[in-house]
Amino acid sequence: MKNEWNNSIYPIVPGHEIAGVVTEVGKNVAKFKAGDKVGVGCMVNSCQSCENCNQGFENNCSGIIFTYNSVDRDGTVTYGGYSSMVVVHERFVVRFPEAMPLDKGAPLLCAGITVYSPMKYHGLNVPGKHVGVLGLGGLGHVAVKFGKAFGMKVTVISSSPGKRQEAIERLGADAFVVSKNAEEMQAAFGTMDGIINTVSANIPVAPLLGLLKPNGKMILVGLPEKPLEIPPFALVAGNKTLAGSNIGGIADTQEMIDFAAKHGVTADIEVIGADYVNAAMERLAKADVRYRFVIDIGNTLQAMDATE
Amino acid sequence: MKNEWNNSIYPIVPGHEIAGVVTEVGKNVAKFKAGDKVGVGCMVNSCQSCENCNQGFENNCSGIIFTYNSVDRDGTVTYGGYSSMVVVHERFVVRFPEAMPLDKGAPLLCAGITVYSPMKYHGLNVPGKHVGVLGLGGLGHVAVKFGKAFGMKVTVISSSPGKRQEAIERLGADAFVVSKNAEEMQAAFGTMDGIINTVSANIPVAPLLGLLKPNGKMILVGLPEKPLEIPPFALVAGNKTLAGSNIGGIADTQEMIDFAAKHGVTADIEVIGADYVNAAMERLAKADVRYRFVIDIGNTLQAMDATE
Repeated sequence: MKNEWNNSIYPIVPGHEIAGVVTEVGKNVAKFKAGDKVGVGCMVNSCQSCENCNQGFENNCSGIIFTYNSVDRDGTVTYGGYSSMVVVHERFVVRFPEAMPLDKGAPLLCAGITVYSPMKYHGLNVPGKHVGVLGLGGLGHVAVKFGKAFGMKVTVISSSPGKRQEAIERLGADAFVVSKNAEEMQAAFGTMDGIINTVSANIPVAPLLGLLKPNGKMILVGLPEKPLEIPPFALVAGNKTLAGSNIGGIADTQEMIDFAAKHGVTADIEVIGADYVNAAMERLAKADVRYRFVIDIGNTLQAMDATE
Repeated sequence: MKNEWNNSIYPIVPGHEIAGVVTEVGKNVAKFKAGDKVGVGCMVNSCQSCENCNQGFENNCSGIIFTYNSVDRDGTVTYGGYSSMVVVHERFVVRFPEAMPLDKGAPLLCAGITVYSPMKYHGLNVPGKHVGVLGLGGLGHVAVKFGKAFGMKVTVISSSPGKRQEAIERLGADAFVVSKNAEEMQAAFGTMDGIINTVSANIPVAPLLGLLKPNGKMILVGLPEKPLEIPPFALVAGNKTLAGSNIGGIADTQEMIDFAAKHGVTADIEVIGADYVNAAMERLAKADVRYRFVIDIGNTLQAMDATE
C-alpha cells in the first residue's frame, strides 16, 4: 500500500502527545536519566542548525520531522506513540514536573502548546486583558484554563448554546457568547484584546473580528478546509491582526508544561485501553469526548498483543 | 443634494495632507505660534478621552473626525484643505521640522504615517531585516524610502515589470520581484520579514504570503473592494500574520515627520495650481502621476477666485 502522505510504502501509525518514563539513555544524553517523567509532542527531529532552530522555533524548521508518518533523517519512518517504546533525541523531549500527571499532561504536548505559544507571543497572557476562546474542544478547553491561569478575563464563543454551563461552571470562563445570537454578539462587540480561534469548520470570520478591540488579534490554530473570506476593512479599521500559529518550539513547550504544573492546568481526558481505539474513533467522529482520549499504552498494548 | 457619506445636506469638499504656516493661535494654544510650519493629516478631532486617545491612537477612536466630510463635535461639517485657511485643534497639528519642505512633506501626513506606523508596531523598522513593498504608488514609494532609512533590505513587488528601473535606480530599492513571474516569486520564497501591502485591487494574497519567512507579517494598508481569500494553512504554517493598519496616531505622526526630516525622506510630487485639479483628476484615474499631486492652494486658490 502506498502511503500518499509521506510518499513511503509504510502504513500510517498515528500517535502524538506521548508521555512516559525514561527507561534508558544514550551515552551522550545529558538532560535525562532513567526514571525521569517526560513527554514528546508533535515533532521528534529538525535540522537543529537553521535560524528557526537556533531561535527555538524548531516548529518552523523546514526540516521538521513529525512524531508520526515522517521520514526521519536516517531514512526510517516515524511511528509515533502507539508503541511500547519510542526513541527520541533528547532535544525533542520535555521534562514533566513532579506535579504533572502523565495522563492529564500528555495532551498539553500538542493541544497545550498550540494555544500557549500564540498567547505568549501575541501578548494574550497579560492579567486583566480579555481573551475570547472560539470553539470549546480539545484546544479550546485548555485555552480557557491557560487564560484564567494568566489572570485574564476569558469569554468562550461557541455556536452551541448548550455549552454555556460547561464553559462557565466547570471550566471557569467569565462569560459565554453564542456566535449565532445577534444580541450577544452586539453586546460583546469591540471588547476583546484577542481571540484564540480553534475552529476547523468554515465559519464567517468577519463578524468575529468585530468582537476585537482596536489593535486586537485573532489567532488561528484550527485549519478550516476552505479559504477564509476576510473583508480588508475588518482588519484595517482598528488595526487588527489575523495570525496563524502552529504548535510551538521545544523551549516554549517546556515553559508551558512548567507553567501548567505550577498553576494546575491539565487537559480533561478519558483514559482508554488500546483495545478501545476503534470505539474511540467512532466517538471522536461524533465529538463525543470531553475532551481528549488518552490511551494507556503501557498497561494495555502488550496485554492486547498477548491475547491476539 | 444629499451627501450620503456623512448623511448631511452639504457637498463633499475633499483635501487632506495639509501643510502650511500658522497665521493665528487661540489663547489656550501652547504648542504653536504664528509663523510655525505645520501640517494636518487625516483627522482634525476625536473624543480625546477614551483609552485609544489616551494611548495616542486617536486614529482608533470611535469618535474620530476626519479632515473632510465629517460632522465635527460642534455640528459643523469639515471641509479639508482645499481652502485658504483651516482651523484645527492643536492636538491634531504636527510641527514641520525646519528641513522638511511644505510641499514634499504634505503627503507624509497620510501616505507617510500609513506606512510608517505599521512598520514601527510590527517590527519592520529594524536594520538588516528584509521588507517587501507590494505596489509602487503614493504609499509604496514612501514605504521604500522609509525601509531604506531604517537600514533594511527593501524589495519592491509589483505586477508591472516596467517599474523595475524606477524602483531600484530612482528609489533605491535593493531588489524587484514581478508578482506574475513564477521564477522570480520562487526565488524570493520565504525570504521576507514583512510585506507592506499597498494594493487596493483584488489580487490573490496567498502566493504573496509565501514570500514571508516564518513569523513574517503582511500589513494591509490598501482597501480592496472584495474580501481577501486566505487559506488558513498559508498563515498557520510558519506562524504568519496578516494585519490591517489605518493611518496612525498624532504622536506617531510627529515622530514620523521628524524621522523623515532627519533622513531626507520626502514624497515624490508634482505641484499643481488650483486651476489644474480637473485635469489632475483625469490623470489620477490613469495613475499618471509620480506619485502625488500637491495643490499649491496658497498661491493659486485666491488668484483663481479672482479671475472667475
